[in-house]
Amino acid sequence: MKAVCLLSGGMDSSTLAYYASRQGYEILALHVNYGQRTEAKERAAANKIARLIPALDFVEVDISYLRQFGMSSLTDHSIGVETFDETRADLPNTYVPFRNGNLLSIATSYAESQAADAIFIGVQAQDYSGYPDCRPQFIEAFQQAIDAGTRDGTRIRLITPFVSMSKSEILGIGMKIGVPYEYTWSCYQDEEIACGICGACHFRRAAFESLGLKDPIKYRGG
Amino acid sequence: MKAVCLLSGGMDSSTLAYYASRQGYEILALHVNYGQRTEAKERAAANKIARLIPALDFVEVDISYLRQFGMSSLTDHSIGVETFDETRADLPNTYVPFRNGNLLSIATSYAESQAADAIFIGVQAQDYSGYPDCRPQFIEAFQQAIDAGTRDGTRIRLITPFVSMSKSEILGIGMKIGVPYEYTWSCYQDEEIACGICGACHFRRAAFESLGLKDPIKYRGG
Repeated sequence: MKAVCLLSGGMDSSTLAYYASRQGYEILALHVNYGQRTEAKERAAANKIARLIPALDFVEVDISYLRQFGMSSLTDHSIGVETFDETRADLPNTYVPFRNGNLLSIATSYAESQAADAIFIGVQAQDYSGYPDCRPQFIEAFQQAIDAGTRDGTRIRLITPFVSMSKSEILGIGMKIGVPYEYTWSCYQDEEIACGICGACHFRRAAFESLGLKDPIKYRGG
Repeated sequence: MKAVCLLSGGMDSSTLAYYASRQGYEILALHVNYGQRTEAKERAAANKIARLIPALDFVEVDISYLRQFGMSSLTDHSIGVETFDETRADLPNTYVPFRNGNLLSIATSYAESQAADAIFIGVQAQDYSGYPDCRPQFIEAFQQAIDAGTRDGTRIRLITPFVSMSKSEILGIGMKIGVPYEYTWSCYQDEEIACGICGACHFRRAAFESLGLKDPIKYRGG
């Protein structure tokens, strides 16, 4: 069994790649650069994780063309990254329109070309920021699109083991299977020392705290 | 009303862009380079058509990363392009796995960023080569993925006016609305003079012949 695994190098996707490997899949790691601020750090993290697993292949794809379309602080570096604010009702400005549609389309092309059986993506709807392309109904719809849009003999399962889990639960799984979190990178904002206050840092820190664990990476100001 | 229109520069997509414009849409032309052999010619054709319409915007996106995945003669230049063979049952080697999934994901990101109302894509299932990502059921599934994977306030209609038409019917529409076919490019194989024998040339020539018209472009050997 072979699986394409979307591997950003963050906590969720690194846990996912280890998890898929433990399930018996050979891993085709797919790292996508979409022009985000912290790409260099994320790529290094993803590559390290892929080598440690070890993955069968590690492919990098650049979709920084999303920058041309604007509208996200992750890809438009003239917009400041919002800090986490639990009171806001609308989407944070880190939203990249239909980013996961792009990621899953690339993964499907890769999977069909390599006759892979599955695609793993680490979306999780629960304590994320309400991105519409992380919702279970999006994943279900995309599975239909894969089924209809690939060869009749192709059967690629879209697997999202974390979609209903909290980040604490994901971390709990990762600790059990020995994910080396010291090599992962989550911060949206900075590349030297994690800022500690963006949405990604917020949720990561909360997950470690909830399990009474110490995050092995350093944060700014403590 | 604004619409993202996928514009390769070929016969169908050029007709489509003119058609969408006649329907009252302002056109956001999206040209995608996926590493195909005849890209330079196609880009020039798309750009010319966009200027003639005239489109509100013309954006080019490079997804030649699909080359890394192999498996198509359009993107892997070590594989020869098959000539048209109506007796073959399986897909021709010009098939690029899930290419339209990639195109539509990019179009969706662009459309949501620019608050466009629609995406036009010139797929047509009838006398094409049986590509699964041109089928109506793929388009329907992708519409569901767009609806689920974009903001709740976003409503982007995926419009495929040609999906049940033959190439002759499309050409008939284009002739009525004055599409300048002399600037379009269809050949899969060559960039100087169209080969006349690849699948794309075959269907284009047959469409002109069926209407008793002369194709304004030249073909090799006649």
